[in-house]
Amino acid sequence: MRDITQLRPKEIRSFIRKGKWDEPTAGLAMGYAQANLVILPEKYAFDFLLFCQRNPKPCPLLEVLEPGKFQTEFLSHDADIRTDIPRYNVYRRGRLESTVKEIRDMWKFDWVTFLLGCSFSFEEALMRAKIPVRHIEENKNVPMFITNISCKSAGVFHGPMVVTMRPISPDKVSRAVQITSRYVSVHGAPVHIGDPLKIGIKDLKKPNFGDPVTVKKDEVPVFWACGVTPQAVVMKAKPDLCITHTPGHMFISDLLNEELAHF
Amino acid sequence: MRDITQLRPKEIRSFIRKGKWDEPTAGLAMGYAQANLVILPEKYAFDFLLFCQRNPKPCPLLEVLEPGKFQTEFLSHDADIRTDIPRYNVYRRGRLESTVKEIRDMWKFDWVTFLLGCSFSFEEALMRAKIPVRHIEENKNVPMFITNISCKSAGVFHGPMVVTMRPISPDKVSRAVQITSRYVSVHGAPVHIGDPLKIGIKDLKKPNFGDPVTVKKDEVPVFWACGVTPQAVVMKAKPDLCITHTPGHMFISDLLNEELAHF
Repeated sequence: MRDITQLRPKEIRSFIRKGKWDEPTAGLAMGYAQANLVILPEKYAFDFLLFCQRNPKPCPLLEVLEPGKFQTEFLSHDADIRTDIPRYNVYRRGRLESTVKEIRDMWKFDWVTFLLGCSFSFEEALMRAKIPVRHIEENKNVPMFITNISCKSAGVFHGPMVVTMRPISPDKVSRAVQITSRYVSVHGAPVHIGDPLKIGIKDLKKPNFGDPVTVKKDEVPVFWACGVTPQAVVMKAKPDLCITHTPGHMFISDLLNEELAHF
Repeated sequence: MRDITQLRPKEIRSFIRKGKWDEPTAGLAMGYAQANLVILPEKYAFDFLLFCQRNPKPCPLLEVLEPGKFQTEFLSHDADIRTDIPRYNVYRRGRLESTVKEIRDMWKFDWVTFLLGCSFSFEEALMRAKIPVRHIEENKNVPMFITNISCKSAGVFHGPMVVTMRPISPDKVSRAVQITSRYVSVHGAPVHIGDPLKIGIKDLKKPNFGDPVTVKKDEVPVFWACGVTPQAVVMKAKPDLCITHTPGHMFISDLLNEELAHF
């Protein structure tokens, strides 16, 4: 196998489809947008779509497929949602039932697929502008925190916003806002800058998910809405069934991050 | 009655609710966002929400209410969708059945309300930047054209994009793009600049809706996605029932246009 980091999205998806790659996708297909996956039975689809419409920062929709459809049109012309993601988590009534490498055999005619933007896209833009991204420097997972910010509820879906934190040097905070503002479809501008307590975060060293990272003395903690929010909200609603990508094992699209960027 | 143009949105809605105002809303509550209305029975709601998600420029969703709900939360805290719009068009199977001043008595438990952004918001921003808006100067309706640009279809909804045209002087086109780009939730940046034929428009003097306006020799025709698009698409799908605002008779929100603007 050639070095997978050098392959194009279509080739990587083909490897994944054949079961030859089931690892995390960070660092693959640099420049291309990766997406979070949520699959729900049709009876929950309107509520979830409405939840995303009302909470675009944590839930930036990239593509939604009609009930039963498993081929994307916007993010790629030849992707199959049932096989082209390295690992899937299958949840029943909010509890993880299994982690699998494909869901072709279990696919149902009424399943609705949601693909949501992921912060990989804007992190690449930050680094291109020489704004260091700490957890990448320290080779860790981004620290994630459950906040006291309520999402706007929709039907059965409600819950707090989850955020990621990146410490930024004071002279670069403004630029970080400008850059990420362009990436509306991948969480966009920060939701909070500064005092973590104001959004209910007591200790930056104790993230709810991911790893703690170094925050230097003069740095400002900057918080972005996180794609874990919709997953947490869905689990809380305990739907009969929900399938997501396994964290870190994303859908790799054919769209460049730049194609998703606002002006 | 005091001069209605001096009143605040809440007061204007109260006049409308009492049946004391059933005229167009252009020029009222300057600075505040006005919205297009589409009401559909629940069975069409997912498809229409999906259509809007896939076509955000012609269909910029400002607020969607759960089935049966008639009070807004985001655009206003005290508005009643059944009474607070000056005039409603009631369509059955795509045909206009009646134009009424309120829909309280006919309201059904499964109706879903969609409120979409309107170009009034960005026109105000253009004029503030001294970019003349021709149809306003000439006291006409904006010229609207059916294009050869296909919207992305969703379920039962499909059809061409309808655009508005504003002629802009060459030195101001760039600024007009910049300004309207900020207003993502009210159609955003132009979809086409220049040659009308490229998007299937044969004669700028013969709009499909609205009035023709003067295009001066050196001016560039600039085209923005238009809120008539979703209405045309819905009519084409011939749903059992659909209620919209009567053209020009919009919902007046409590949100400032600036609150809807992107960075």
